[in-house]
Amino acid sequence: MKKLPLLITTGEPAGIGMDIVLMLADKQKFANFNRKIIILADIKAMQQQQNQLQQQNSLSKDIQLYQLNHQATSVDTIYQDFDNILNFYKDDCLNILHIATKKTVIAGQLTDENAEMVLSQLQLAHELAFYQKVAGIVTAPLHKSVIMKIKPDFMGHTEFFMEQSRLDKVVMMLANSAMKVALVTTHLPLRDVPNAISKDEVQKTVDIVLTDCQNKFGLPNPRILVCGLNPHAGESGYLGREEIDIINPVLKQYQDKGVDISLAMPADTLFTQKYLANCDVVIAMYHDQGLAPLKSHGFGETVNITLGLPYIRTSVDHGTALDLAGTGRASVDSLYQAILYADDMANRALIDC
Amino acid sequence: MKKLPLLITTGEPAGIGMDIVLMLADKQKFANFNRKIIILADIKAMQQQQNQLQQQNSLSKDIQLYQLNHQATSVDTIYQDFDNILNFYKDDCLNILHIATKKTVIAGQLTDENAEMVLSQLQLAHELAFYQKVAGIVTAPLHKSVIMKIKPDFMGHTEFFMEQSRLDKVVMMLANSAMKVALVTTHLPLRDVPNAISKDEVQKTVDIVLTDCQNKFGLPNPRILVCGLNPHAGESGYLGREEIDIINPVLKQYQDKGVDISLAMPADTLFTQKYLANCDVVIAMYHDQGLAPLKSHGFGETVNITLGLPYIRTSVDHGTALDLAGTGRASVDSLYQAILYADDMANRALIDC
Repeated sequence: MKKLPLLITTGEPAGIGMDIVLMLADKQKFANFNRKIIILADIKAMQQQQNQLQQQNSLSKDIQLYQLNHQATSVDTIYQDFDNILNFYKDDCLNILHIATKKTVIAGQLTDENAEMVLSQLQLAHELAFYQKVAGIVTAPLHKSVIMKIKPDFMGHTEFFMEQSRLDKVVMMLANSAMKVALVTTHLPLRDVPNAISKDEVQKTVDIVLTDCQNKFGLPNPRILVCGLNPHAGESGYLGREEIDIINPVLKQYQDKGVDISLAMPADTLFTQKYLANCDVVIAMYHDQGLAPLKSHGFGETVNITLGLPYIRTSVDHGTALDLAGTGRASVDSLYQAILYADDMANRALIDC
Repeated sequence: MKKLPLLITTGEPAGIGMDIVLMLADKQKFANFNRKIIILADIKAMQQQQNQLQQQNSLSKDIQLYQLNHQATSVDTIYQDFDNILNFYKDDCLNILHIATKKTVIAGQLTDENAEMVLSQLQLAHELAFYQKVAGIVTAPLHKSVIMKIKPDFMGHTEFFMEQSRLDKVVMMLANSAMKVALVTTHLPLRDVPNAISKDEVQKTVDIVLTDCQNKFGLPNPRILVCGLNPHAGESGYLGREEIDIINPVLKQYQDKGVDISLAMPADTLFTQKYLANCDVVIAMYHDQGLAPLKSHGFGETVNITLGLPYIRTSVDHGTALDLAGTGRASVDSLYQAILYADDMANRALIDC
């Protein structure tokens, strides 16, 4: 069986996406993978960024950029011609699927005119992953407000891939060497969190976590710990009843089916070595409850993994960092970890990747 | 100047309070302090617990228990006679202020009849600290529901000391070697948190943190970082407006007065080394937001410090652990850290301790 390639979107061209790809290539990090690594970018913008980084001595080698798609340049034609395009892959180059920006890229300066190019990256990445032409997608950051100029309902990478896959729920999971944390709710004002914690949402989250642990992480019987919503997990109802009325009845059903899952636990003790040592995934009820402890153990190496999609998608855990674009000072750690995770998941996945 | 003694309440006699005091004495840990350490307990129950631990080889030495108060045995008489009682202090003994339990103590078995003895410990500790007979109080855990049998409105140690000191607000701070975190709200259902975050509450919290950093920690210009309420600290209002409408206007006033305090920061990035390295105290808006990251770095060594009281009070960060009482398997770390903190604070305090 031949391994499918991994696709990396460079995202917002004025941000650090291209920088960190070039810096990883410079460190020969893409050679570590036993599969093709393909970069979505404007090749001229990449060359220009490479020059800028070389002038600052941020790159030690002269990495050769190679445009894979000589003819096909639109999302549709690249998709149709993809099997053929792959034949041109050169092991000793940085292999780029070229999607042209409308306007010349200046590092650090956003321009609405390049929004379409970013959106084309996402569209192409989705289609190649959805139809199993690639093993998975690794995304560098984009700038939401730029995309919203041409697509006002744009909510972000994750929601875009969810809608394109015709799903109504995916699960955001963050992972680093200390732990993996999946969230029931994500970017909601704290005021709206309690009402968003329904039996249905908890159940859908657990289902997705379970399914993806099995299908994408090679964990047939994942050990899952779940945070309560309230402090001390409600302390038998004294500090809130959501654990008793909503969360635990759902978790109990999974326990009854033999799933290795806890009832609602106090979040302030769950994230300790005592519990994490015997746990594959933590499910937290809301953003700060799960991500504050997670990121406190290794910000910069944290990877964002979207569970529930019909394909593997990982992402860096930082923004476009416009002020660092073109300076060579951006950290490559999160992108590298995101690629490592995607590759590892592809190797463990039940479907051929 | 003579240093004032530290007072340790053993709390619930059926719990691990007496165990961990005996185990610390066994390791000669009380000798490390340049001040008297006085234990509030029933001396017979202590002797009995000592026997039990000795039979299990959990104590290596024969610690001599010494009853300081030969005559005075009620809260009032001990308080009145305290200066005299201190003269009997023996450096080579475990010095106990004896308060009698009504019923013989059996490790691990709660009995309502000993509730009064626990409450007497708190009452005496408060009075000795309030009138500066001792440098501060270190409390071992009690069992709230037992005390509620004789004092139905009992909410816990902290609220008791607050009421006795006629205050309407104190601040719960937890500390370990990784960080110090003070909370604006503590034991509230998550649903009630957003409405509890008022300008007044934020301001009172900052005032207390500032005052106690100065008066009890010897930090004239503490560096304070503050969490937002919402994920990403509200992301400019997209994820909630409390930062804009409530939290930041208060913090801005302190900044304008020259206080080294941040505006509301995203909680998921605040608890990283990048920020903590240049911070004395974090203020979190609610329980899990602050305590999940804090305890993830060192549960067991975490100390609970009550700010805003007119005296120093630290506490262990665990419960009565009835199942461990009398077994010798309880951890002494949190109590020892709580004593270290109280002593250190007393040494740094602006008033004579």
